[in-house]
Amino acid sequence: MQISKFMTPEIIFGEQSISQVGESMSRLGASRVFLVSDPGVVGYGWVERVIAHLRESGLAYQLWTNVTPNPKDFEVHEGVALYRESECDAIVGIGGGSAIDAAKAIALLGSNGGSILDYEGVDRITRPLPPMVMVPTTAGSGSEVSQFSIIVDTARKVKMAIISKSLIPDIAIIDPQTLMTKDSRLTANTGVDALTHAIESYISLAANPLTEIYSLQAMRLIAANLRPSVASRYNPEAKKAMAMASLQAGIAFSNAILGAVHAMSHQLGGLLDTPHGEVNAVLLPYVLDYNYIAAPEKYRQIAEAMGENTAGLSLAESSRLAQRAVTRLLRDLDVPLTLSALGSFEEHLDMLSENAVLDVCMATNPRDMTAEDVKMIFQNAL
Amino acid sequence: MQISKFMTPEIIFGEQSISQVGESMSRLGASRVFLVSDPGVVGYGWVERVIAHLRESGLAYQLWTNVTPNPKDFEVHEGVALYRESECDAIVGIGGGSAIDAAKAIALLGSNGGSILDYEGVDRITRPLPPMVMVPTTAGSGSEVSQFSIIVDTARKVKMAIISKSLIPDIAIIDPQTLMTKDSRLTANTGVDALTHAIESYISLAANPLTEIYSLQAMRLIAANLRPSVASRYNPEAKKAMAMASLQAGIAFSNAILGAVHAMSHQLGGLLDTPHGEVNAVLLPYVLDYNYIAAPEKYRQIAEAMGENTAGLSLAESSRLAQRAVTRLLRDLDVPLTLSALGSFEEHLDMLSENAVLDVCMATNPRDMTAEDVKMIFQNAL
Repeated sequence: MQISKFMTPEIIFGEQSISQVGESMSRLGASRVFLVSDPGVVGYGWVERVIAHLRESGLAYQLWTNVTPNPKDFEVHEGVALYRESECDAIVGIGGGSAIDAAKAIALLGSNGGSILDYEGVDRITRPLPPMVMVPTTAGSGSEVSQFSIIVDTARKVKMAIISKSLIPDIAIIDPQTLMTKDSRLTANTGVDALTHAIESYISLAANPLTEIYSLQAMRLIAANLRPSVASRYNPEAKKAMAMASLQAGIAFSNAILGAVHAMSHQLGGLLDTPHGEVNAVLLPYVLDYNYIAAPEKYRQIAEAMGENTAGLSLAESSRLAQRAVTRLLRDLDVPLTLSALGSFEEHLDMLSENAVLDVCMATNPRDMTAEDVKMIFQNAL
Repeated sequence: MQISKFMTPEIIFGEQSISQVGESMSRLGASRVFLVSDPGVVGYGWVERVIAHLRESGLAYQLWTNVTPNPKDFEVHEGVALYRESECDAIVGIGGGSAIDAAKAIALLGSNGGSILDYEGVDRITRPLPPMVMVPTTAGSGSEVSQFSIIVDTARKVKMAIISKSLIPDIAIIDPQTLMTKDSRLTANTGVDALTHAIESYISLAANPLTEIYSLQAMRLIAANLRPSVASRYNPEAKKAMAMASLQAGIAFSNAILGAVHAMSHQLGGLLDTPHGEVNAVLLPYVLDYNYIAAPEKYRQIAEAMGENTAGLSLAESSRLAQRAVTRLLRDLDVPLTLSALGSFEEHLDMLSENAVLDVCMATNPRDMTAEDVKMIFQNAL
């Protein structure tokens, strides 16, 4: 019995759609909203916008913005204490993947109790979560539609993947306008994260026809729009296309899961606290090279989606074209190309490699991978 | 502000997935399930399978099978009376579009009360529906994922379209095995219905990037698999592809809505009580011809998706190719090609045409249409 499962939140997409946040929360029965964001997003005025729309719908709110990139277990615990104290009954997250992942983790603990460390892995959640509306302000994480929340276990310095259908928000509101306040480095990082979602979900062992066409379409949109989106904040067409690409890649990976790039970057990101997209950017070409023999025909499709012409080429040649297209894009974006550029971690290589093999994202990587294989890739990418 | 909305149920797809019906209902908190089907589906043993799986999950049930093709208002009212009397708290529909549409209409009245006639049109439902799990046994209607329920108003002899997000089932279980008990005529009819969903949703004024790629992929799958699926009951690959095509077309049209073919066939189907897919089959080429000037570039994409080679052709030539590919498929399937073959209705032409213009599906047709335009198409198709 081979069964595919597919689930998404209700999606509202378009310019000015942020104005629907109050109505959306009301529709879900909220009365007092716990609003999760970070200081950067507050600074750009988006939180003020959300608050105005909540008020229009007659909703009370409690703002909490103590989220850092790669959100930490203790931040989530602090957030949920305030969620309870302020007697909120619903959650809005606005920001990048960190704010949204933290908002989802707070919702989880809000109704299920305990420590966030209790929920690492797949399907550990037993009680329904409070209503959640998520508003991404980066085009990358896909967290607004996914069943993932990634939280750092600070004692172990590891990013825990928490996976459950219960973590899929009720409503995702994607307003491409919010992308105009990202700087070019963040635009590049998060765009590469979306590209990694698209590629890993496409070659995942759990890919299915409902996810594959979104993975491929996300690649097409990223290949055509990530460069111009990094080049200029004020390119509404490129922003809109990247918002759609991130959304489609998010729907795909939420249902098809990911692979070795994410299994490895969860380890390194936890240890070094570096931007998730940058770790992915370095690892992606190396993992693509390793995984090729598992899915050459899919690599040909990736090459086509990335805008390459594979007519008349052998599978091996098409595959190289896929890898070259990805590498060329990464070079153009000025993202880091070596792990050494991100920090020093060589003494931890064995532990990182052993933990990567245990990460839930490794289970769907198309090629088997031992701790030795992981270590070799880490070393190649140094 | 141009905003796209997108919503689907949780989807479970694959051979033997019917075995998940009990667990799915339990997960939704059901204790006593109202099971809606029709005598044909009972005869093939699928209802017995569902009952066995409900029992395995410790669920009580009440079976009701008084649904006819093109389900009628009084059938829905009879069903909801038994739903209440038997104190059910959840609904499973198993069958073609008729059984599933009836199940959704019973769920609607079960929690909202009144007559089904009160709910014609968009967004007339105010209270949440009981949990619903739908199991299609035809590859065509898409009702298992859609926000539509189509019920005949027997006094007016019109098919009412009832549209609301509340009508989207909680879980859709699509098991391609169930398609092997369809005869070739039903396989052809329902397949053409799916094709019409794919095409009308693609050229709809409400199409968006999340729906368009499912519309196109459904066309590709139908172009390649509907003929072999009609040719043989025992072609598991073709059945699986058609199940996926119907699902993808269903997701697309639920969110992008439809067009003039459906606006017109709702009238004729209500009057003559003929199979929905057959009315669509006759009307589709004529409406395609009428709509062309609204979306020539999309017609080129349709031609490509239907397997035609448009390289080097003008838009006008590509469009003709799209229409020819559709007509050729319809001819191969031995579906009726004229309305006169379906019954006699010429005396009602004015009323049918005026009502078609008021059907909710007409609002998203890409080319404006007056009652005179509709009448002309009906006459051409006689």
